Amino acid sequence: MEEVVPILYDGELSLLDQRRLPFKEEWVRVSGAQDTAQAIQQMVVRGAPAIGVAAAYGAAMEFRRASACGDLDDIEKRLAVLLGARPTAYNLQYAVKRVLAAARRAEANGDDPALAAEDEARRIDLENRKAAERMGELGATLISDGDSVMTICNTGSLAIGYLGSALGAIKAAWRHGKNIHVYALETRPWLQGARLTVYELQKEGIPFTLIVDSASAITIQRKGVRSVFVGADRIVADGRTANKIGTYTLSIVAKAHGIPFYVVAPTSTIQLEKTDMALEERPPEEVTSIGGVKISTAGDAVYNPVFDVTPPQNITAIVTERGIARPPYQDSLKIMLS
Amino acid sequence: MEEVVPILYDGELSLLDQRRLPFKEEWVRVSGAQDTAQAIQQMVVRGAPAIGVAAAYGAAMEFRRASACGDLDDIEKRLAVLLGARPTAYNLQYAVKRVLAAARRAEANGDDPALAAEDEARRIDLENRKAAERMGELGATLISDGDSVMTICNTGSLAIGYLGSALGAIKAAWRHGKNIHVYALETRPWLQGARLTVYELQKEGIPFTLIVDSASAITIQRKGVRSVFVGADRIVADGRTANKIGTYTLSIVAKAHGIPFYVVAPTSTIQLEKTDMALEERPPEEVTSIGGVKISTAGDAVYNPVFDVTPPQNITAIVTERGIARPPYQDSLKIMLS
Repeated sequence: MEEVVPILYDGELSLLDQRRLPFKEEWVRVSGAQDTAQAIQQMVVRGAPAIGVAAAYGAAMEFRRASACGDLDDIEKRLAVLLGARPTAYNLQYAVKRVLAAARRAEANGDDPALAAEDEARRIDLENRKAAERMGELGATLISDGDSVMTICNTGSLAIGYLGSALGAIKAAWRHGKNIHVYALETRPWLQGARLTVYELQKEGIPFTLIVDSASAITIQRKGVRSVFVGADRIVADGRTANKIGTYTLSIVAKAHGIPFYVVAPTSTIQLEKTDMALEERPPEEVTSIGGVKISTAGDAVYNPVFDVTPPQNITAIVTERGIARPPYQDSLKIMLS
Repeated sequence: MEEVVPILYDGELSLLDQRRLPFKEEWVRVSGAQDTAQAIQQMVVRGAPAIGVAAAYGAAMEFRRASACGDLDDIEKRLAVLLGARPTAYNLQYAVKRVLAAARRAEANGDDPALAAEDEARRIDLENRKAAERMGELGATLISDGDSVMTICNTGSLAIGYLGSALGAIKAAWRHGKNIHVYALETRPWLQGARLTVYELQKEGIPFTLIVDSASAITIQRKGVRSVFVGADRIVADGRTANKIGTYTLSIVAKAHGIPFYVVAPTSTIQLEKTDMALEERPPEEVTSIGGVKISTAGDAVYNPVFDVTPPQNITAIVTERGIARPPYQDSLKIMLS
């Protein structure tokens, strides 16, 4: 068992380049909002909570770069590039806004905004780790000894910074000695499952089987899969959950086979005030090329939504660091966050 | 509009190498049962009806190669390699058995078995073309002007030899002047959709959009897809349909969105006597590598079923060259074939 650490901060930020995994373990150094935003946009770092932590440090570094008497309004303008790096992960908005608010509070109190910003970023990172640990423990209670479970995308240490969300629950069950088997969806187009989840499962020593995304139904049907665990990029008040493309499809397949479908995500992913999902679409080339090899002549005739939205009626429970919410989510999420 | 012809016979068989499409149009020549079986196994030619036609010619060539007084029992033994080339497509069994039976009848009547075998192969080819034309016309009646339709795998000229089955219905609707839009699933692992269906749609000039397989649900939901058309590798008496991996998943998604799900296939695909589906699994490398590029460290920890089975309750209708069968298929298929 080897813990995967994708984000390191020592005044500058080091990001394990997730575009190169699993074949190369290379680190990218960033030192401000602009290059952190670029790293997020290009998916050097991905996974909603990890994006949030990287963005928090990216914002904090921007305050440090400014002179002690830097104008916070100017800095706030430079943070816009971070907020716009990727649209769906709510953690990104959440983290940057918290760092900015901490700096403004410090300034109002006559303290150093840069120090306060950095402290807040470290606090977000720490909260994130604690949330992952707690989510993992809670999620693991939903997995029994001998279970086969299915998951999509990568929701492990690479996505969260520590343990994971959905994959964290699976890892926690394994660490508690439960004998489990993981069916990992490869997760086209970016292959987070085939590349990153397999990499983490191998480091952890958990038995697994890789399948193509469209084999979810036959695998649940023929391999006795007991439950599905997924992460989330954004959860709104009624429980609707934006997550990696294919999650909605998988929720329909799980429901058709009568097996539970669990969302595991930190509360920083939940956005009670809004209903908007801001679903990102990415370039056609992510579909028409794989690893630099062109596979189709489709050109721009591609629909490449990176996320879809799973409706609450397909979700058995939402696991956060604060507990396990069950339907109706309109009530249970509000109570959880109060 | 340009007709795609994947199989040519002039005493030897020429097969358009579907492993190289869409980027290279190369032909492979075969001259007997052994190399035809290898071409089928390696997917130079694929698609259940096209496999059947290729196997028929492969068998016929084997009779021609034998001397005029060749022992039919010996030839039959050499045809076993064809029958075992791929397990799922019923057309393969059907075609080889017909060619063999024709040769045996000729011998019993004092005629030339080799000539009879070749005649029977040409007859299967011709029947296949006529079936494709008729299926296309019937299937096209299920598509209205302005419809968006979704399809998986390649079920066009490349798979059938002429027009196609599911894609044939779509093409026929287009040729009748209906304004349609096709959402093509890329169809991992072999990418028949991204490579072959896109290639055929572009030759035909039909507007299309390529999506990853797991985006089926969001696309049906957000793009107003009206119906799903798929082919079949094997249909049994109760309507259960073996087809490309992901078809079962897609049928669940279609049902969840309340849109019709149509199977289009020639009657040579239907096997009323048996219930066995003989689902093929192929090597892990088809999942862990794409176009020669390794994408995962999963090694052999892969489940790669090439087909799945769609239950009759998910199928709105089965379109063959003899008509449109509706549930209960136990009755409608029997009547259709009687």
